Amino acid sequence: MAVFVLRLGHRIGRDKRISTHCGLVSRTFGASGIFYSGENDEALENSIRSVVKSWGGPFEIKHVKSWRKFIEDFRGTKVHLTMYGLPFHKNIRQIRKMKNVLVIVGGEKVPGHVYQMADFNLAVTSQPHSEIAALALFLHEFFQGKELEKKFQKANRKIIPQERGKKVVEKHLD
Amino acid sequence: MAVFVLRLGHRIGRDKRISTHCGLVSRTFGASGIFYSGENDEALENSIRSVVKSWGGPFEIKHVKSWRKFIEDFRGTKVHLTMYGLPFHKNIRQIRKMKNVLVIVGGEKVPGHVYQMADFNLAVTSQPHSEIAALALFLHEFFQGKELEKKFQKANRKIIPQERGKKVVEKHLD
Repeated sequence: MAVFVLRLGHRIGRDKRISTHCGLVSRTFGASGIFYSGENDEALENSIRSVVKSWGGPFEIKHVKSWRKFIEDFRGTKVHLTMYGLPFHKNIRQIRKMKNVLVIVGGEKVPGHVYQMADFNLAVTSQPHSEIAALALFLHEFFQGKELEKKFQKANRKIIPQERGKKVVEKHLD
Repeated sequence: MAVFVLRLGHRIGRDKRISTHCGLVSRTFGASGIFYSGENDEALENSIRSVVKSWGGPFEIKHVKSWRKFIEDFRGTKVHLTMYGLPFHKNIRQIRKMKNVLVIVGGEKVPGHVYQMADFNLAVTSQPHSEIAALALFLHEFFQGKELEKKFQKANRKIIPQERGKKVVEKHLD
């Protein structure tokens, strides 16, 4: 079973931090990789890859030229997160049974065709908020909280949880 | 019972979108308001207030000059979300019993004193990701999913969930 994320319509500069957060959230909460359409952004990819190098993986990031072709070719269930869709928590049980899932999150303007291509259009509330939060909540409910205990491989850095202050162990953790 | 959020160290320009997402996530997932320290940003406040005007409230946003004094003066339980803290899901039951909760989320560099002033330093995983996602997950687990059904007052706009496409009802909804 694998979950991948597709981030639509990335724009260099304006979206760098939002897309980086989407990538990091995807990795932390159990997705295997993030794909993004829009502008090809080496800085975005490098910032995600440097996190994977330090904190472990596996996790991949890749630019796609055509989101349309990518969605069409994806073998699995396509879930588009949109505030206009049906409540996600009432549909998630069904999606948990699926083998491969592609979670599609929008940028500024999502082409109408995405709604047609998706198997599910789901809303993490029908209120305006954040694709980062929507993605995190969807993955959290999809994995039923088990993602919070996820172990990452080949990490060079690891936090030892503390009541106060910071404790980080570096290198040779695996 | 009320939950408030304090966003530390906002910087105009660089943080606008991230802080806006923090504000919108706070509103959507059941907090009563967001306070922020750092630079006083009218554009940020206006974007949150315009969402409240359209989509309902109550929800407030306010700048605080001194985060230190604000945290000191807050009457209630102070929870600082940090990747260095203890696992949040193992401590949330205890926090749910509290009457007033202040959830503190960092900016770029969190002063060490915040760790000392907080009653709890809690991690939404010990992995690097996003203060937006951390906030969303904390509120979701704090309210146990009930926030997903939250009704907003005096909304001028409301979405009618659809399997495909968009349906929005405007004005005189309340």
